[in-house]
Amino acid sequence: MTTETVLHALRWRYATKVFDPKRKIPADVWSALEECMILSPSSFGLQPYRFLVVQDPALREQLLPHAWNQRQIVDASHLVVFAVRTSVTEGEIDRFLDRIVEVRGVPRESLASYRSMMTGMLLDPAFQPMAVHWAARQAYLALGNLLTAAAVLGVDACPIEGFVPAEFDRILKLPEVGLTSVVCCALGYRDPNDKYAHLPKVRAPREQLVQYR
Amino acid sequence: MTTETVLHALRWRYATKVFDPKRKIPADVWSALEECMILSPSSFGLQPYRFLVVQDPALREQLLPHAWNQRQIVDASHLVVFAVRTSVTEGEIDRFLDRIVEVRGVPRESLASYRSMMTGMLLDPAFQPMAVHWAARQAYLALGNLLTAAAVLGVDACPIEGFVPAEFDRILKLPEVGLTSVVCCALGYRDPNDKYAHLPKVRAPREQLVQYR
Repeated sequence: MTTETVLHALRWRYATKVFDPKRKIPADVWSALEECMILSPSSFGLQPYRFLVVQDPALREQLLPHAWNQRQIVDASHLVVFAVRTSVTEGEIDRFLDRIVEVRGVPRESLASYRSMMTGMLLDPAFQPMAVHWAARQAYLALGNLLTAAAVLGVDACPIEGFVPAEFDRILKLPEVGLTSVVCCALGYRDPNDKYAHLPKVRAPREQLVQYR
Repeated sequence: MTTETVLHALRWRYATKVFDPKRKIPADVWSALEECMILSPSSFGLQPYRFLVVQDPALREQLLPHAWNQRQIVDASHLVVFAVRTSVTEGEIDRFLDRIVEVRGVPRESLASYRSMMTGMLLDPAFQPMAVHWAARQAYLALGNLLTAAAVLGVDACPIEGFVPAEFDRILKLPEVGLTSVVCCALGYRDPNDKYAHLPKVRAPREQLVQYR
């Protein structure tokens, strides 16, 4: 793929304010976008998140007032709520190690030092207040991955931070499963009349943002 | 671009452990990757980060022991340290609004309610302890964007969380400019003998990670 193709896609994308509620993302494209999220790298490989795809219209209507009534919540073809684990447990680390054994066919014993490294950092009581922040960073990495993948596939998206996590958590019953919502992403296709589509992008000058050392 | 092309790139990428120290990323490709980072969306558009490209070999050698001697730090063609602002100031918000006026040619007054929204949230004393976490999330989003862009361009990368931020900050003189390092990314080309290149990817099963509501 050429640099121009990638840059064209990233210049074309914007935080879509008005989605065409009639246009749905085709199943094969959506499936690929899901796989892009799944393929995201994460800290130690632990993937301390879940991608909740909220497709029930009634549930989306319930979420709407808790996201400042941003219509993307209900109008977009797909809505992903990125939810993270509120704490790290030994069980989760061991399930991950089991998965490595399953996928790579390596002996469990060969992972002993990797296990110590993870438990040493993640089960340290001092780490616990940081667990959500650590997990949220991984979720944002997946979000960045999703946004870029969507752009190169010609799918519009709007990352959404403007919502009340406690209300989303309550409606989606996340505390019951040890999760909390950290960010959302609406995906679909822009309404051709969205006035935001044609505004020039505002970014700090390159020499300010990128600094050589 | 087809879904297969994107998925192929994301399956091809992996956290590169051994870079070929002789292969450098061509200038035009690197420039495009910089632009991909610059084009990343961020909270309110504020871009509360700097992308520090550490190309001085002596500086990289100094960083090495504080990143568990991971050779990617010195062997990769390019090393980016993602640094974020440790606090949000009114001046920063106003400089951003000036930039909107400059780029979009809109009257400053038209941005009054946007300004209130930002100051209301970001200058609230209760937000200050969260400022670094908020900024770090944006930096991780840019990292996700960079990793995906690199993959589709055939550039190898290794996101690096295993380093001591306080030591990186000291060596790169970040506290003096109100920044702190949150994550790094080494980029370049894999050594064909890197044994990690051919290991199957370990990811949780789709039905666990992606849940429909």
